[in-house]
Amino acid sequence: MKIVVIGGGACGLKAACRARRRDPEAEITVIDAGRYPSLGRCGLPYYVGGIVNELNDLRRTLAGVVRDVQYFKKIKNIDILTETKVTEIDREKKVVKITKKDGSEDEIPYDYLVLATGAKPIRLNLPNADAEGVVTLFDPEDAEKILDMWDEGILEKAVIIGGGLIGMETAEALSNLDVEVTIVELLDHVLPALLDKEMAMLVQSYLADKGVKILTGSRVTEIIAKDGSVVGVKVDGTKEIEANLVLMAVGVRPNVDLAKACGLEIGETGAIKVNSYLQTSDENIYAGGDCVENIHLITGKPVFIPLGSTANKHGRVIGDNVTGGKSTFPGVIGTTIFKVFDLNVARTGLTEKQAKELGYDVITALCPGPDRAHFMPGQKPIRIKLIADAKTGKLLGAQMVGWGVVDKRIDIVATAIQMGATIDDLANFDLAYAPPYSTAIDTLIHAANVVRNKRDGLYKTISSFEVKDKLDRGEDIVLLDIRSDEEFRKFKKIEDPRLLRIPLEELRENIDKIPRDKEIVIVCQIGSRAYDAQRILEGYGFKDVKVMEGGMAFWFW
Amino acid sequence: MKIVVIGGGACGLKAACRARRRDPEAEITVIDAGRYPSLGRCGLPYYVGGIVNELNDLRRTLAGVVRDVQYFKKIKNIDILTETKVTEIDREKKVVKITKKDGSEDEIPYDYLVLATGAKPIRLNLPNADAEGVVTLFDPEDAEKILDMWDEGILEKAVIIGGGLIGMETAEALSNLDVEVTIVELLDHVLPALLDKEMAMLVQSYLADKGVKILTGSRVTEIIAKDGSVVGVKVDGTKEIEANLVLMAVGVRPNVDLAKACGLEIGETGAIKVNSYLQTSDENIYAGGDCVENIHLITGKPVFIPLGSTANKHGRVIGDNVTGGKSTFPGVIGTTIFKVFDLNVARTGLTEKQAKELGYDVITALCPGPDRAHFMPGQKPIRIKLIADAKTGKLLGAQMVGWGVVDKRIDIVATAIQMGATIDDLANFDLAYAPPYSTAIDTLIHAANVVRNKRDGLYKTISSFEVKDKLDRGEDIVLLDIRSDEEFRKFKKIEDPRLLRIPLEELRENIDKIPRDKEIVIVCQIGSRAYDAQRILEGYGFKDVKVMEGGMAFWFW
Repeated sequence: MKIVVIGGGACGLKAACRARRRDPEAEITVIDAGRYPSLGRCGLPYYVGGIVNELNDLRRTLAGVVRDVQYFKKIKNIDILTETKVTEIDREKKVVKITKKDGSEDEIPYDYLVLATGAKPIRLNLPNADAEGVVTLFDPEDAEKILDMWDEGILEKAVIIGGGLIGMETAEALSNLDVEVTIVELLDHVLPALLDKEMAMLVQSYLADKGVKILTGSRVTEIIAKDGSVVGVKVDGTKEIEANLVLMAVGVRPNVDLAKACGLEIGETGAIKVNSYLQTSDENIYAGGDCVENIHLITGKPVFIPLGSTANKHGRVIGDNVTGGKSTFPGVIGTTIFKVFDLNVARTGLTEKQAKELGYDVITALCPGPDRAHFMPGQKPIRIKLIADAKTGKLLGAQMVGWGVVDKRIDIVATAIQMGATIDDLANFDLAYAPPYSTAIDTLIHAANVVRNKRDGLYKTISSFEVKDKLDRGEDIVLLDIRSDEEFRKFKKIEDPRLLRIPLEELRENIDKIPRDKEIVIVCQIGSRAYDAQRILEGYGFKDVKVMEGGMAFWFW
Repeated sequence: MKIVVIGGGACGLKAACRARRRDPEAEITVIDAGRYPSLGRCGLPYYVGGIVNELNDLRRTLAGVVRDVQYFKKIKNIDILTETKVTEIDREKKVVKITKKDGSEDEIPYDYLVLATGAKPIRLNLPNADAEGVVTLFDPEDAEKILDMWDEGILEKAVIIGGGLIGMETAEALSNLDVEVTIVELLDHVLPALLDKEMAMLVQSYLADKGVKILTGSRVTEIIAKDGSVVGVKVDGTKEIEANLVLMAVGVRPNVDLAKACGLEIGETGAIKVNSYLQTSDENIYAGGDCVENIHLITGKPVFIPLGSTANKHGRVIGDNVTGGKSTFPGVIGTTIFKVFDLNVARTGLTEKQAKELGYDVITALCPGPDRAHFMPGQKPIRIKLIADAKTGKLLGAQMVGWGVVDKRIDIVATAIQMGATIDDLANFDLAYAPPYSTAIDTLIHAANVVRNKRDGLYKTISSFEVKDKLDRGEDIVLLDIRSDEEFRKFKKIEDPRLLRIPLEELRENIDKIPRDKEIVIVCQIGSRAYDAQRILEGYGFKDVKVMEGGMAFWFW
């Protein structure tokens, strides 16, 4: 049995190792174009940012051994050919044609072939895009290049094209090196594929606090070079920004050249199409990792969401199936997380925008809260957005941004979505409670209850964006700020003559000061006390009362 | 509409507040026997340990306001009677008879009554149990008493009777005060209701490292007093231990006196029986929180598991139902978490022991691993045990102990169990991956794969307890330690002539040094490399090869 794997990344090596564990006899060969197989690419921003000291740290086992060619040979009895290019797959003869490091050519026969060719970063076709200093951050060589520039003292200003995940992580890494960073994003907020606008704005305003400049709704139209090196970019054809480094972080494309050339079916996303066994249109060829599309478990549609965690799962399934197993991979729901400075940003499922585009009638909640008991040291705030199907109550997605713990809560929702849970299920999950880990009613459970209260017509909200519009349009509303004097002094406030201040504690005795003939929008710090105030006012017969959802935590102006 | 709530804890006040939010008109009265309604009891150990500075911090809202009688009146329009005892419930007349703080008596009529009478700590009936210095840690007054003794300088040594959750948390709190602590536990390991033995041993050996003495399989038979004050305890009728403080931490009992006296149905657990609406056997009386039993969602049987998180959920359901709603509470799965020093300990569902006693054919896995990418600063180890139904693959329970993050992983499993997930579902969950939060294959997903590998006959294991027995019995086995020289020097090792050392890297070339006619037990640090070694040996035709599951992380001798 001859198993040949093209690609020495997460999926390819996992497939090879899994195959070996199941079959001690098979001949297993991995062909990798690069020099460093088994390198955790996800760690590259941390290498640039100085948190990871050497590239080999991204290749070690838990016990500290570098997973190099010798490691795979000695322990796994797997042959890895590095710096070796596959030039052709001959499906008839079942051979792979290669060109080795020394230029010599060869053919390797296979019984099963595994395509784990990964993805490659998109390079925009801009004027001067080939200038020195225009990079992506994808291969270890890219990271080395950035660090070399920094070592040489010629890296002071950077422009990152694309406000996505890699753009964010690299913005932090470069800031850690005291590089002045400007992010240029085409759409009207950062992270457009991952977050709805109000959640993205939380990230955006935090980045601004950290000194990162962000231009949204802006396009880099030209790279400005001098003597072959980058000196800046031109934005929207006019505005110039100085830069020694331009990072293109506008996403990746699946590496499907080999698959296409040998006639394998490519899916509508542009990635290799596979069935649930991760088998391509050729039954002897499997494919996984960043070069294939996955089924989105909510929509049932193919999506291209390349992730290291998914690639590893693919590898295991493929390793089973090329050794006589019958394993399947169900699909993904687009769970993503990253850290930018001290902020944790995570999402899963569909955004509100995506869900609406797909025709869902959605109900959502914005719920800021603490990540553990307020009396515990280290307690930090988080902001949760939940999206559910208004018809069925099924969870469709969640987004979380916070200085506190969000990975836990996003994983709970991801698990819940994957198991088909409703918002009512979520509200009753028996989650672990003790003061160092959560509040007695966890902020996530609280968020589920907020959705239920909105669904049941108890809690009536208006978004901060709508409030801003109303104020800008000059509508004659009452903005009722019910925070305490101390909070009002200490925190952000809306400066507007339509603002009426009555602390919640004094609301009942001051009820006559509130006009009954106007629309009333209640504002507090995070929205929960405003809910009390809304119910109090309604108890006194007020008819048009709403809470500004999420409170001042979502006031961006 | 008159709603009367007995008990000003989590359930009672949540029920009252929820009722108010739904019904602005109802007359809502809460009767509380204590002085501090709305105090988060779960925080008491942190108050004793000096992490929480004042008792009122356990009563504050997120905005910092103390939830006292005035707070509930002004904001919620709820009347709270503190230091008021309910002497009788007259179900015929629908009145509650009370004795107030000043000794005067009164009657309060109700349309709906809510019993949220909570639980009370069990006090063992030992000789001298009423001596000064014998306490529980349940009420704020208990915490004050312990701190008073410490302030007076008369608290140097403490004995904690009971190695359960409260015992652990208090052991930490007292150690933080430099008090010498001995825990006396009746059963053969600590946390017997929560953890299986091997997981409990992880906690136990860590506590020992922290200087806490633990006597398992031991009974306190007498409290030794001098001049009315504790000076020690007698264990098993003979051994004496000095102590200025004896903390009884042997669990709590539901407070059902009032319910019993008025003839409400009590369940087989001794707690009040309620239906899924949390209605007692009297349709006008609801009950929730620590005084009721819950349905265990795995077994379908009633259980008494009092927790603040559950009490809050109960309160919401009751608040709905006493104001015309129809909310239900599904039940619990026994999720529990606590921190002891730097160790996080969590569990959900059934232990292996509990599952076996219930007749399940179980399959389990022990899986130590890192909590995030090994190259990230702050990465810390965790140990996971998973328990699944061997027939259906359904998850039955999990236990996690670690210096790293376990709350996230236990909540994922809790969610999965509550939604009926199998071990295969868990292995394919699309969990959030980035280096600061997890490994590309999260240790939890890895644990699910370990269960699958055992189920599929690939991975063959033996427990460290069985290995110890074999060695003690003098069996002629080979203990094959495949760790590197450096690891062998640095870490715990088994000193035994039957130990054979061949580092994994050199295994294939030294295969002839391993006897083929003996049972071989492979040992590494956490078990995963030993799995490679097992498969290598089996590849070379070895027949009787097993991995010591969990590796040296589970070697306690």
